[in-house]
Amino acid sequence: MAAFGRWKAQRLARADASRKGALDERAAPVVRLLNAWARFCTTSSCAGRLVLAQGGAAEDAERRGAPKKGCVWLLVTHEPCRRDELMTALEKATGDVVFKFEPFVLHVLCRELQDAQLLHSVAIDSGFKNSGITVGRGGKIMMAVRSTHCLEVPLSHMGKLMVSEEYIEFLIHVANRKMEENTRRIDRFYKCLQLALEADVSANNLHSEETEKYHSVYVHRRKRETIQEQDVHTSPKDHSEELEPEDDPESNLGIFAEIMI
Amino acid sequence: MAAFGRWKAQRLARADASRKGALDERAAPVVRLLNAWARFCTTSSCAGRLVLAQGGAAEDAERRGAPKKGCVWLLVTHEPCRRDELMTALEKATGDVVFKFEPFVLHVLCRELQDAQLLHSVAIDSGFKNSGITVGRGGKIMMAVRSTHCLEVPLSHMGKLMVSEEYIEFLIHVANRKMEENTRRIDRFYKCLQLALEADVSANNLHSEETEKYHSVYVHRRKRETIQEQDVHTSPKDHSEELEPEDDPESNLGIFAEIMI
Repeated sequence: MAAFGRWKAQRLARADASRKGALDERAAPVVRLLNAWARFCTTSSCAGRLVLAQGGAAEDAERRGAPKKGCVWLLVTHEPCRRDELMTALEKATGDVVFKFEPFVLHVLCRELQDAQLLHSVAIDSGFKNSGITVGRGGKIMMAVRSTHCLEVPLSHMGKLMVSEEYIEFLIHVANRKMEENTRRIDRFYKCLQLALEADVSANNLHSEETEKYHSVYVHRRKRETIQEQDVHTSPKDHSEELEPEDDPESNLGIFAEIMI
Repeated sequence: MAAFGRWKAQRLARADASRKGALDERAAPVVRLLNAWARFCTTSSCAGRLVLAQGGAAEDAERRGAPKKGCVWLLVTHEPCRRDELMTALEKATGDVVFKFEPFVLHVLCRELQDAQLLHSVAIDSGFKNSGITVGRGGKIMMAVRSTHCLEVPLSHMGKLMVSEEYIEFLIHVANRKMEENTRRIDRFYKCLQLALEADVSANNLHSEETEKYHSVYVHRRKRETIQEQDVHTSPKDHSEELEPEDDPESNLGIFAEIMI
């Protein structure tokens, strides 16, 4: 437990490696709620995004395991998408371009397996049905919050737009509805998490409750002091965007494993 | 351990609840390899499929948590798709229709957490990067093999086809390449799994090795005797297709939890 606290303090103090350099505002309440507890430490998050990617998904079949260089981001937005911005981005297409909705993803290091179980049941109940636990080298326990929610649409082939503007308008409507549902699930997750943690503490004995509170205050203070690092270390997902535009929630596990060793 | 063996024997003997009533041939080697070991019991599998679904995905935003009645399958194939069969299926469209590639998914009950860890690392190394462990009620340990591989394309809106035949031809090409890559990953998973299990046994002491062999023979014999049940109980995923056309790998957990209680 002490080792977890030490590791968490180090993790919170790490320098920003992300492109965005900040926590997605929509993911912030969940991330801060979790990091306020001694038993949890978020290692990456992405609130959900719409991406226009060139060269990644369409070549996936050939390129699995190979470096994803040559993949270009034509558009990335964490907000509902407008037709004009997508059309403008599509004009830059020179290869195979795919439009993707990527839902909320969150990786949380947990102190005990039972902490990961609590988080997992909250995630499933909130609609994140692809969530799961990873037990890494040295027995480190990581909980990944993932959705089955998906949209991946090839739009251009070798620079040529394969669909009509009418279709793109329809597609944006569908994508934005998925973004809205994604936001509802994040809010549901936050509320369920709050209730579950309170219920869990009231079921604990006074000692462990005091321990939680002590750690909680400690982490809150750290957060106020180092809000930038706080934002940063919670968004290696955004970092991984730059390196690996193709969505790969587990790509942080490598980074994660290095930190643990 | 004895409890796990008893539960596994019961699970293997359960009646078929799946629409297909048989294990996907492409998933069979992995499923049989796992079930030949006392420490594993597969609870669901789908080798990967192409689906043309009406009413599911497009309405997802409104319908999360609600029963998915009204959702119709216009086409489901576990083989590469042909343009003519997709066009024929599309002619039946009366609502919002989505074309989806759904990759290999496998749920495996594991005797010990370390068994799930072994399976998880093999899955990740084989390219199934969304794989994760679930620790259920009563501490039952389930490993889910999942891919980040995705394709989900809205094609019709209120019965009207929104794309050209040229686009559909291109889309089928992309989808079939994903099917091919999916098959390569399944083969890779099978080979890695074989090596990992052999390495694990050779690292074990003679007693546990003998135990594995004893159980292995027992399960092999059961499989020959009850090959139909064997096929069946490994494919509630196919069963869930009928109830919930929209892909939801975790939907089996409910069934799974009931079995465990």
